[in-house]
Amino acid sequence: MESSIPNLLKQRAFLTPNREAIVFNGESYSFLELYLQAKELAGKIASLHVGQEDTVGILLKNRPHTFFIIHALQQLRARAVFLNHRLTPSEMEFQLKDSGAKLLIAESDFNAVTDEIKVMHPSLEAVSVEDVFTQKEKLIPQHEEYGLQDVCSIMYTSGTTGKPKGVLQTYGNHWWSATGSALNLGIRGDDSWLCAVPLFHISGFSILMRSVIYGNTVYLIEQFHEENINELLVTGKVTIMSVVSAMLYRMLDVLKERRYHNRFRCMLLGGGPAPRPLLETCVEKGIPVFQSYGMTETSSQIVTLSPEDSLRKLGSAGKPLFPSQLKIKADGEEAEVHTPGEIIVKGPNVTIGYLNREDANKENFNNGWFSTGDIGYVDEEGFLYVMDRRSDLIISGGENIYPAEVEEVLLSHPDILEAGVTGAKDPVWEQVPYGFIVTKASLSEEDIIEFCQKHLAKYKIPKRIFSVSALPRNASNKLLRRKLMDLLSEGGLE
Amino acid sequence: MESSIPNLLKQRAFLTPNREAIVFNGESYSFLELYLQAKELAGKIASLHVGQEDTVGILLKNRPHTFFIIHALQQLRARAVFLNHRLTPSEMEFQLKDSGAKLLIAESDFNAVTDEIKVMHPSLEAVSVEDVFTQKEKLIPQHEEYGLQDVCSIMYTSGTTGKPKGVLQTYGNHWWSATGSALNLGIRGDDSWLCAVPLFHISGFSILMRSVIYGNTVYLIEQFHEENINELLVTGKVTIMSVVSAMLYRMLDVLKERRYHNRFRCMLLGGGPAPRPLLETCVEKGIPVFQSYGMTETSSQIVTLSPEDSLRKLGSAGKPLFPSQLKIKADGEEAEVHTPGEIIVKGPNVTIGYLNREDANKENFNNGWFSTGDIGYVDEEGFLYVMDRRSDLIISGGENIYPAEVEEVLLSHPDILEAGVTGAKDPVWEQVPYGFIVTKASLSEEDIIEFCQKHLAKYKIPKRIFSVSALPRNASNKLLRRKLMDLLSEGGLE
Repeated sequence: MESSIPNLLKQRAFLTPNREAIVFNGESYSFLELYLQAKELAGKIASLHVGQEDTVGILLKNRPHTFFIIHALQQLRARAVFLNHRLTPSEMEFQLKDSGAKLLIAESDFNAVTDEIKVMHPSLEAVSVEDVFTQKEKLIPQHEEYGLQDVCSIMYTSGTTGKPKGVLQTYGNHWWSATGSALNLGIRGDDSWLCAVPLFHISGFSILMRSVIYGNTVYLIEQFHEENINELLVTGKVTIMSVVSAMLYRMLDVLKERRYHNRFRCMLLGGGPAPRPLLETCVEKGIPVFQSYGMTETSSQIVTLSPEDSLRKLGSAGKPLFPSQLKIKADGEEAEVHTPGEIIVKGPNVTIGYLNREDANKENFNNGWFSTGDIGYVDEEGFLYVMDRRSDLIISGGENIYPAEVEEVLLSHPDILEAGVTGAKDPVWEQVPYGFIVTKASLSEEDIIEFCQKHLAKYKIPKRIFSVSALPRNASNKLLRRKLMDLLSEGGLE
Repeated sequence: MESSIPNLLKQRAFLTPNREAIVFNGESYSFLELYLQAKELAGKIASLHVGQEDTVGILLKNRPHTFFIIHALQQLRARAVFLNHRLTPSEMEFQLKDSGAKLLIAESDFNAVTDEIKVMHPSLEAVSVEDVFTQKEKLIPQHEEYGLQDVCSIMYTSGTTGKPKGVLQTYGNHWWSATGSALNLGIRGDDSWLCAVPLFHISGFSILMRSVIYGNTVYLIEQFHEENINELLVTGKVTIMSVVSAMLYRMLDVLKERRYHNRFRCMLLGGGPAPRPLLETCVEKGIPVFQSYGMTETSSQIVTLSPEDSLRKLGSAGKPLFPSQLKIKADGEEAEVHTPGEIIVKGPNVTIGYLNREDANKENFNNGWFSTGDIGYVDEEGFLYVMDRRSDLIISGGENIYPAEVEEVLLSHPDILEAGVTGAKDPVWEQVPYGFIVTKASLSEEDIIEFCQKHLAKYKIPKRIFSVSALPRNASNKLLRRKLMDLLSEGGLE
């Protein structure tokens, strides 16, 4: 009996039609208006030959029409592939082809990118947002229910192999993520959630999904501006906000003597544990920080630390959400308390798997348990401490950078023999990628960075490139990325 | 992936060990204490040969050990049959036999009842609460997860045929009921829910289930006393309370000039729509009343009316919970707005069916939709108005009375030829049962009531018995219960 849920937006518009769904630069939309917009757009997208279970790429900014389009695709029960607009056209094209997308809907701001994608992928139909709005509306069947196992969204993520994998997120994943989070953070009828994180990330998209499930308002922000955001928090317009450390630093920096309104009840912090001084400033200013650990595969946070534990359990990501579980696995067994091992998680918010990746699915899923690839341990009370993100993942201003992906680009340069990429600490972005290379000819740092610009989103391009005589490797010749930074102090540079 | 959830109490005790789970007459128990109690008791109950999927009858009062025992049975993954302690021994014996219970755990207050049950059902093992506590603890396997489809509880309810049917309530039913309700009423970390309704009813048991899922405190009340309860609400110790009208009347009656604390945020009112004067008093006193409609088969409320709509939509039960749906069916089709018909409901909180009742299941379930047998209509905004409870159900002080069951007892009297039972308005209990009989010999009202006392729980015994020459029947000779009361004014009495 738990295999389906009502059409989410339709049900929400029926239950609380007049509640505010979106506030954006002074415009606002009720849930009824949102539903009517989505329904109309669904008919228009259908006229572009999109139907149930078809896949549609979206390359969109944090704007209200992105809500309309995402919900329109859900009305059609089509699957949305969320494209990070900081990717290069070839990176996007890979995701569109891999997911079998038959249509791309893109902001006209990205026309140049769309044109490049079309050249690479001529059979793909690509339209702008304006194109969609001017379509003739087709009559479409109304779906009263969604299967919990139906795929709602696809987001790409990389692993050790370098090639991004499409994470399948079902309606059930999003539903359970939202309800699991609610059991932890609470729900109030008058909540409003500020979304300044990108909608193409699970951090932003999960705000959209929670909004329709909870019936709360989203304050949608296209361009992060610390002063404007502080204003919304100080005046009490917003009760919850999702941030990464870099954003929070900037906000606190300009907050000065002011304090956030006492309606503001949750600063949900993702992308790694917060440093102690940041937490202490928040305690001082009465800002309730909930640190969290999650990933695309868990459809948002799966482990969260409450403010009352944030200093006592400094560096911890917290405990799992109610419907979820975690274990630490070392040498094939569940590890003892305080013993590091791989973090494995289970729960109805965990992806059903990667699209068309039999091997990765076999490798990462075992009896409902998902191997995150991240390393961590739990203490005697069950609090999780994350030590290393999977595959030496670099998190830069909340964006994931997979070293293997960057290394692959470096290695495609004809004069580079070996390449290793790792994260270096950065005062603004927490981490930035550094590249280490072994070359057969002399190459300048600038040349290599220029070469990378053609193949990599800007945030993935190494901020520094170092030529070295050899890369640190283990006995079986596996690159030891965590030892790369030692080369800088050990004088291994060429 | 949504087919299981963690062992509820174990997970709750892990996540928030120190939060208060139960407050009872000044005693209090944290979730960790509750879990340890339940685990120990589970081992003791296991030594009485109870294991997974075994059925155990419980005849218990609103006391902390009832929480321990219910949770202990869940630790064993045994099924609990909830016995209403107002039933007669033979009514209880029927439910124990029908459900195949192998053990009965009863308060020693009910030793006399238990003895009578044992006489009727010698193969049943029956123990008192004290007996359970003094058992030797057996080592038992720890269940890490519950299947959402696993049966957690069985509660008996009657229909037109008179014989009570066991409603199977799964862990999934309770989970979805709790989360669906949370999406409507909200959840706050500091909520405390007052339980003065019986734990053997879904109204009370659902408070227990929500508590472990939400992590909120239950203020458990054994004996309803309006002054004591007002005190808890006035001082702000309680934020939510489940009531039926009769309780609310008594509370308001003695409240006088006082007001409930502003932490008190939800008076969840079940058992039929509230009369206007009651609602108006609540508005005046700032008491947020949430009217609701639900039944054992929906594992608690499925339709709820928010306070902001309570006067505007007077008499309405509200709109469905988010995961649930309702339709009005008339002449086999979905009825138009404002057209009465049978209320049918769907949702993951709806029972998987009646125990061993193939026919009733076939009759009542169709493609996931459950036919409630209740009559109602929806208005143009989708608000439900319940007109008649199923089978002329009588609700007396929150207890369900099924006329057919009472009629069966009356008809078992050698001198009664025909019998009809219906509800009469009552200032205290909302409704009380009245009986109408056709006799072959002269019988006194007292004699018949005395006869009923042997076979029926006290609240089911007709408050008045009227001898009539004939009962109102339709062309196919079906008893028209709704016309019984007309006999009193029409002078059809003998």
